[in-house]
Amino acid sequence: MKNGVISSQVIKRLSKYYRLLSDLSAVGVKKISSKTIAEKTGFTASQIRQDLNAFGGFGQQGYGYNTDILICEIGQILRINTHKKAILIGVGNLGRAVALHLEFEASGYSLIGLFDKKESVTGTVVRNTPVRHISRLDEFCRENRPEVAILCIPKEEVPIIADHLIRLGVKGFINFTQYDMSLRYGSVAVENINFWDSLTTLSYKLGE
Amino acid sequence: MKNGVISSQVIKRLSKYYRLLSDLSAVGVKKISSKTIAEKTGFTASQIRQDLNAFGGFGQQGYGYNTDILICEIGQILRINTHKKAILIGVGNLGRAVALHLEFEASGYSLIGLFDKKESVTGTVVRNTPVRHISRLDEFCRENRPEVAILCIPKEEVPIIADHLIRLGVKGFINFTQYDMSLRYGSVAVENINFWDSLTTLSYKLGE
Repeated sequence: MKNGVISSQVIKRLSKYYRLLSDLSAVGVKKISSKTIAEKTGFTASQIRQDLNAFGGFGQQGYGYNTDILICEIGQILRINTHKKAILIGVGNLGRAVALHLEFEASGYSLIGLFDKKESVTGTVVRNTPVRHISRLDEFCRENRPEVAILCIPKEEVPIIADHLIRLGVKGFINFTQYDMSLRYGSVAVENINFWDSLTTLSYKLGE
Repeated sequence: MKNGVISSQVIKRLSKYYRLLSDLSAVGVKKISSKTIAEKTGFTASQIRQDLNAFGGFGQQGYGYNTDILICEIGQILRINTHKKAILIGVGNLGRAVALHLEFEASGYSLIGLFDKKESVTGTVVRNTPVRHISRLDEFCRENRPEVAILCIPKEEVPIIADHLIRLGVKGFINFTQYDMSLRYGSVAVENINFWDSLTTLSYKLGE
């Protein structure tokens, strides 16, 4: 497991542990049992022990886990301590909120550039970053080498922009659009944030 | 299957079919084969036939599916044609973008109220809806009976607000916060939109 590919479900659980442990560490909690993690995450203690022991067994029987070591180990698996440069394309209402709201730094990203095609938006500043015109994307990417792009553009614009970004060296996307990138970009890392899916799934659940 | 509980993975696929079929119907496409749906969604044709035939078998051998009938049938399963009244709590940058961006009407919701605790926000209008002060929530809910609440508030505020909303009759949540509602509200329908999970999962994928 240690050097293999970890399933996305395990990754989501690790992400949740990391989050919880960081909150606890910030208020001075130095050690924690799988039972306490279970109470605070809703996963079973045996599930937690299985997840955590698979990555080197840093728990001690009868003592529990050292919070800071666990944070460090999970952080390495999630590559939180690497520096990932991100740009955001499409600074409308959504893009602007995403730029302001996402916890880039805490998860090892830095938002280094914002781009839009509208002249009315370019030149404004969001999160201390100026919004540049999309025509300056090539020059910017060649100089700054962003690894990640966050797409907050209309879905019709995705193929052209994404093709272009991949040519410029972008390796991963946070996709807020309805465009299904898996069809065209099977080998690129994509995380979809799909509001439509959430609305319709909740709609179904309400009828259960 | 027809009257049973459908897994969330099937629901997400149905949601995707619905979306695709609606787009195709809007440009006049009257019938469609499982092969074409497969090409446009990335699922296999046999997976698609299995999903769709489970709900009554409305495909015809050699003809394909009638687009509008399929939209209607999937829409009924997803309860898209029901009228779901939603309110949104927390009209900061994120809440404002969510109010403006989510396709409420297309998925059978109507956003009937916006609430915030900040006096500087109350009285403004977003998506033709006035932002009300949170102190007016009880009165509003008793009069208008919203079924769904969208939470764009700090995570610390979730337990108090959610307890209150459930007492006021809210049955489902779209949760944009980091607060894990499953621990406290196991029986309530919740869809989480978790930016942190997406950032950390992408971070891991980039290292694979």
